Amino acid sequence: MASSTGDRSQAVRNGLRAKVLTLDGMNPRVRRVEYAVRGPIVQRALELEQELRQGVKKPFTEVIRANIGDAQAMGQRPITFLRQVLALCVNPDLLSSPNFPDDAKKRAERILQACGGHSLGAYSVSSGIQLIREDVARYIERRDGGIPADPKNVFLSTGASDAIVTVLKLLVAGEGHTRTGVLIPIPQYPLYSATLAELGAVQVDYYLDEERAWALDVAELHRALCQARDHCRPRALCVINPGNPTGQVQTRECIEAVIRFAFEERLFLLADEVYQDNVYAAGSQFHSFKKVLMEMGPPYAGQQELASFHSTSKGYMGECGFRGGYVEVVNMDAAVQQQMLKLMSVRLCPPVPGQALLDLVVSPPAPTDPSFAQFQAEKQAVLAELAAKAKLTEQVFNEAPGISCNPVQGAMYSFPRVQLPPRAVERAQELGLAPDMFFCLRLLEETGICVVPGSGFGQREGTYHFRMTILPPLEKLRLLLEKLSRFHAKFTLEYS
Amino acid sequence: MASSTGDRSQAVRNGLRAKVLTLDGMNPRVRRVEYAVRGPIVQRALELEQELRQGVKKPFTEVIRANIGDAQAMGQRPITFLRQVLALCVNPDLLSSPNFPDDAKKRAERILQACGGHSLGAYSVSSGIQLIREDVARYIERRDGGIPADPKNVFLSTGASDAIVTVLKLLVAGEGHTRTGVLIPIPQYPLYSATLAELGAVQVDYYLDEERAWALDVAELHRALCQARDHCRPRALCVINPGNPTGQVQTRECIEAVIRFAFEERLFLLADEVYQDNVYAAGSQFHSFKKVLMEMGPPYAGQQELASFHSTSKGYMGECGFRGGYVEVVNMDAAVQQQMLKLMSVRLCPPVPGQALLDLVVSPPAPTDPSFAQFQAEKQAVLAELAAKAKLTEQVFNEAPGISCNPVQGAMYSFPRVQLPPRAVERAQELGLAPDMFFCLRLLEETGICVVPGSGFGQREGTYHFRMTILPPLEKLRLLLEKLSRFHAKFTLEYS
Ligand SMILES: Cc1ncc(COP(=O)(O)O)c(C=O)c1O
Ligand SMILES: Cc1ncc(COP(=O)(O)O)c(C=O)c1O
Repeated sequence: MASSTGDRSQAVRNGLRAKVLTLDGMNPRVRRVEYAVRGPIVQRALELEQELRQGVKKPFTEVIRANIGDAQAMGQRPITFLRQVLALCVNPDLLSSPNFPDDAKKRAERILQACGGHSLGAYSVSSGIQLIREDVARYIERRDGGIPADPKNVFLSTGASDAIVTVLKLLVAGEGHTRTGVLIPIPQYPLYSATLAELGAVQVDYYLDEERAWALDVAELHRALCQARDHCRPRALCVINPGNPTGQVQTRECIEAVIRFAFEERLFLLADEVYQDNVYAAGSQFHSFKKVLMEMGPPYAGQQELASFHSTSKGYMGECGFRGGYVEVVNMDAAVQQQMLKLMSVRLCPPVPGQALLDLVVSPPAPTDPSFAQFQAEKQAVLAELAAKAKLTEQVFNEAPGISCNPVQGAMYSFPRVQLPPRAVERAQELGLAPDMFFCLRLLEETGICVVPGSGFGQREGTYHFRMTILPPLEKLRLLLEKLSRFHAKFTLEYS
Repeated sequence: MASSTGDRSQAVRNGLRAKVLTLDGMNPRVRRVEYAVRGPIVQRALELEQELRQGVKKPFTEVIRANIGDAQAMGQRPITFLRQVLALCVNPDLLSSPNFPDDAKKRAERILQACGGHSLGAYSVSSGIQLIREDVARYIERRDGGIPADPKNVFLSTGASDAIVTVLKLLVAGEGHTRTGVLIPIPQYPLYSATLAELGAVQVDYYLDEERAWALDVAELHRALCQARDHCRPRALCVINPGNPTGQVQTRECIEAVIRFAFEERLFLLADEVYQDNVYAAGSQFHSFKKVLMEMGPPYAGQQELASFHSTSKGYMGECGFRGGYVEVVNMDAAVQQQMLKLMSVRLCPPVPGQALLDLVVSPPAPTDPSFAQFQAEKQAVLAELAAKAKLTEQVFNEAPGISCNPVQGAMYSFPRVQLPPRAVERAQELGLAPDMFFCLRLLEETGICVVPGSGFGQREGTYHFRMTILPPLEKLRLLLEKLSRFHAKFTLEYS
């Protein structure tokens, strides 16, 4: 001890010493976290934007951020009713203004009544404002054809992200061979891999079947589970439906099979259903895990543990910035549920404006309300345009040689597969880049189009993909898709 | 394996089986988390409120929540300018309304320009909107008498809580005797103990000196550090200034001594400065750690690692529900800083309305702006009333026999020490309660006053305290303080 202090004083005299917190010494789990959606490609996009602003000449005039599911960043306008009520909540002086419809005022007053000090500026209870939990429960009941939902099982959150992390936290235990394993789809939304890395849990990959439109196959779940049991204790299964980045919408049969599997294998189910309003394909329909589970009856309905997540960030409203969301837990052990609440209370509460927004999303204007017609028209317009863009994306990509794209049945992304010539793969390896990262970087530099390489989400060895949102306005999207297809052809030629 | 599957099928046939996720099997670190500010006493307060609403007769007509630093929940009105600009941001249609001052409109337009899609509904970059980071940096420079602040070192967060947890996460490493230890004050704000428990770090307690108005004593830091080195590797030191729950404001000399100590002992400094605008006592002044560090010059200024936290929840605005906050890091290793950004990006971004609010807090109206006079008047009124309430609290408590209370120099709480008669302590032990929890529960049941027992924050063995906010309106606070003092006298009599 004495000598180390001596060394230190020496260093101090020299005016030089190592940092206390270094890359080597920091939390190794945090180091292992990867997060592609906002990774190096996005860094580069930011730099390019700056260069453009500084007048640097580029082969494009703007950077198009097709990397993230952020509708309003792509120009989608907020739904009028939602913003009217929120403005009234933020500044209640407006309640006397003649410029707001009556139902918007009533809704704002109702929300404010339920807030501490009748203000969005008070902390709420950690599980979220009680009235809003009740409204969420009623929404779930309507969505699920009357199957009961208990507000006690609904917890509001800071976006769905927060709730997903919280539930995963509860599940992590054990060391070495008994460490918690969590099954996640590949390709996945990288929140899952990042959170498991941070928590020190074991990520157990199950592959979605690209040949069958990214279907989830129970045989593959079995394979993944059996292999994982050699080195960890699998305790949970995550499903994303509709899928990100893969855009598939699961059939009812598939969901039943997954529930049976989880039940037999004693896995806690996490159903990421943030895209539940984003279903476009004819013949596709959203089935909530909760509803299917309840309709399956005993022994599943009363026992299978499930957490279902929803968000204000997606759907028709795309209110990402407000960070609203919730989780409904089903059949969760009561004592564990208490522990979850305790954990949530450490961070005090989710943002109250996001809670208020969630309230409006789960209880929109009724047909007899003055705001109904406009609300409905705006909502339908967004969803109809998304459906058209989903269709267009699939079409244009599938016309391009070397690109193949499954139907975008739901969510907000296409995840096309691209052929990359062997010489391009070699070149990427020389540069120390994943081949699809190399492709996406070149795409960005030459066209300004920012998409995320498939390697950020996971994909079968030797296949290459990228994720592109369908969010740019229709005509712009068409140009983008064509530009991207032409770039791929040129890139292929260049390396052939 | 086969037999366990057999057992399971048996259980399935019986329709009975254990939960996958149980209290025994869940994350043991989460189980160890404690969070008193929203613990059992608050649960009971909620129940009492419900009973009152149902018409149950009680010796009081309302529950007074003096347990949490939530100004607006206690009736404080939001600052007009802040809410005007926010309403304009939320609903930009209002920009054409004549009912908003010009400077509010300009500020809203400026913020919206900096948002994705010019909307609060887009995700921001994970570190927060660039313009707002720049405004925060300029605020810090003004606050610190011109010492430079770099926006690159400012990261916006979901309340200060989020940033504190993030920085602590980076620091946690090691196993057994090399586990990261973090020094925290006792009494402390329980976010720290809860987070360290969750992260599996070692909490190293240093005691504030109640006899000297809760001063921080470097000799005590030394003692705590030396003892801790036997069983962990102390790497960080947290300081809360102004103090929660203790209300002390540190002197410049004290801060210098702490910085020298941290430097010599190679500790990363975390300065929780969320109450920087809440200083009331004559002779007390807020000194930021950053400013003092920089003014100390070499070798400290260029090397000592520091993270300083601020929030929109406290100060004169008390906008807790918006969850705005930031951390400024100083001398952090560049690669570690990259890792921090990566970690933040997993949860996408802090709530954008909270970011916008933070922007207004760090760059309020200038003297030449139309909103200046009203803004200034409202701000001063809040701060003057808080100062009066701080004084009143100290006075009334110190007049009560068996209660002694240090001056509330800053922050929003008193943390008086109460004598509890030995028979009350015995009775509490019979009930399995901490003696001050017993006192606070009885207080709640008989008076409706909800305060948090000192045991939730930590205190010297054998001493008893509670934390009470100074936030209720002045006249109400006076009644509360008197009621509480009378209850203590009665309680003492009852158990003597
Ligand atoms: C599948 C999925 N889950 C969860 C989230 C998190 O969204 P948020 O935290 O904004 O609610 C996203 C966001 O893109 C997502 O795609
Ligand atoms: C000392 C201290 N730090 C941090 C916080 C967190 O505040 P918030 O997350 O609302 O910014 C609080 C809240 O009471 C506090 O008292």
